Amino acid sequence: MGLLIVGSIALDTVETPFDKVENALGGSTTYISLAASYFTSPINIVGVVGNDFPQKYIEMLQEHNIDTEGIQIIENGKTFRWGGRYHFDLNVRDTLFTDLNVFEKFDPVIPPKARKSSFVLLGNIMPSLQLKVLNQLEKPKLVVCDTMNLWIETTYDDLIKVLKQVDVLIINDSEARQLAQEPNLIKAAKVIRGMGPEFLIIKKGEHGALLFDENAVFSAPAYPLENIYDPTGAGDSFAGGFIGYLHQTRDLSFDNMRRAVIYGSTMASFCVEQFSTRGLEYLDKLQIHDRFLEFRELSRFDDNE
Amino acid sequence: MGLLIVGSIALDTVETPFDKVENALGGSTTYISLAASYFTSPINIVGVVGNDFPQKYIEMLQEHNIDTEGIQIIENGKTFRWGGRYHFDLNVRDTLFTDLNVFEKFDPVIPPKARKSSFVLLGNIMPSLQLKVLNQLEKPKLVVCDTMNLWIETTYDDLIKVLKQVDVLIINDSEARQLAQEPNLIKAAKVIRGMGPEFLIIKKGEHGALLFDENAVFSAPAYPLENIYDPTGAGDSFAGGFIGYLHQTRDLSFDNMRRAVIYGSTMASFCVEQFSTRGLEYLDKLQIHDRFLEFRELSRFDDNE
Repeated sequence: MGLLIVGSIALDTVETPFDKVENALGGSTTYISLAASYFTSPINIVGVVGNDFPQKYIEMLQEHNIDTEGIQIIENGKTFRWGGRYHFDLNVRDTLFTDLNVFEKFDPVIPPKARKSSFVLLGNIMPSLQLKVLNQLEKPKLVVCDTMNLWIETTYDDLIKVLKQVDVLIINDSEARQLAQEPNLIKAAKVIRGMGPEFLIIKKGEHGALLFDENAVFSAPAYPLENIYDPTGAGDSFAGGFIGYLHQTRDLSFDNMRRAVIYGSTMASFCVEQFSTRGLEYLDKLQIHDRFLEFRELSRFDDNE
Repeated sequence: MGLLIVGSIALDTVETPFDKVENALGGSTTYISLAASYFTSPINIVGVVGNDFPQKYIEMLQEHNIDTEGIQIIENGKTFRWGGRYHFDLNVRDTLFTDLNVFEKFDPVIPPKARKSSFVLLGNIMPSLQLKVLNQLEKPKLVVCDTMNLWIETTYDDLIKVLKQVDVLIINDSEARQLAQEPNLIKAAKVIRGMGPEFLIIKKGEHGALLFDENAVFSAPAYPLENIYDPTGAGDSFAGGFIGYLHQTRDLSFDNMRRAVIYGSTMASFCVEQFSTRGLEYLDKLQIHDRFLEFRELSRFDDNE
């Protein structure tokens, strides 16, 4: 059965040293589903917007074969808006504003046809909402979850409940250290896997990503980008490429997860090359596979013995 | 012809959260030559010590087939001493003291038999001394150089002169950003390669290393160590494994450089597992090759098409 993606849908105002966009399409659901759309279908997304949300964005998602029935449109409501400014080195950003608007009362309702989704991506939303989503599902085969420092700090108990039901947790390195209360990432991975997830992915930005299961570690390189125009959505694009490829192949072996991590990194690298979701809107499968092969060239070495 | 290594020889006092050692063997020459000794010979080292330097350390180096004729022993002089303390996460260290002693007037004299060395490793010493070394050599085939933020800040012009004669520069990521005055490492690599070195290696600690030439980038993973007992000497062990393997194979192709970077990372991983040079003293070739293969397992992925 299908792939279900639940998270935020937003209008982003983003400044970087290179340019500025206002009210551009953003939100975790958006980036995740676009990235996944190059690998698989059907994809159902669940989120909430106001009636100020441009219809053209919904049409663009639909053109990517994404089923938007699960988007709630709140009459007389305003869409979630986020504003951020990236510094010169693009690793640091300031949040300029966060207007939750209709997202504040988001109550995720999974359309009946999506309740049997076999693969589920819980985007970075409040853990209690992630639990609500899980409670509406009929035995998904794979639950992939994103979270953030805010939930680790403010809703730790709910997060722990979520993690018990999660197969793959995707977080960044500082979140991993915070969640495990352990500076060494290898030790931290053991602690976090002990909280529930069989697989853990730690994203390290310009340093790539690590995938852990009980016995193995996979270290994925980062794509060597000279020009990063907008880092927004990179982590969500990673998650989308990752689960999209897994859903396409239906293979949860560690070797296939390695490939899925590289496809995730591939989609993240396309994402940051343009503002907002533009880097994910006009790709084709050949381009994606070519970049996958570039990742191989980047990290391959042979034994000479 | 042989491999020449020039740098510091020191007695280190190191505190970590786990233990403390006083007057243990240290210095760049020491770590580099021990790491290289598992790959190749003859190795000539050049450095300076006082007559307080324990003879047992010189014998230990000799047992590793390292020619110590180039070690100057200064009568009534004291050996260079360094003291440092590592914090809980081991990525941060405080220098507690630096007593240069005989190292302050170090004037590297290359023994006649080592002047025709084909491969040269210039450890992290003042650039003017690195130039003095180069001036005594007869057309080496490969010059590998280490440097540090102090020389970028205080003796930039001399460093630039050195770089024009260097084939491979090995520095860490913050030094690369500082030297190139560019936060993006891919752009920084282009700037630094423009200063002279055909190859550039950027070490990123727990995030691995990057190797650059004109056309390609190789991203090497870091070995997933749960327990790092003493990070001192990791960078020098990397350099020693790197040049030792290149000197053994006499192959300067990019593909062989990839392997050399992994052998460098391998030696660094052994180094930090024990205090001082102990992690490098009792290895054998099989152990080293096994860990090389672990690096392959860590970073391999296949194309499923």
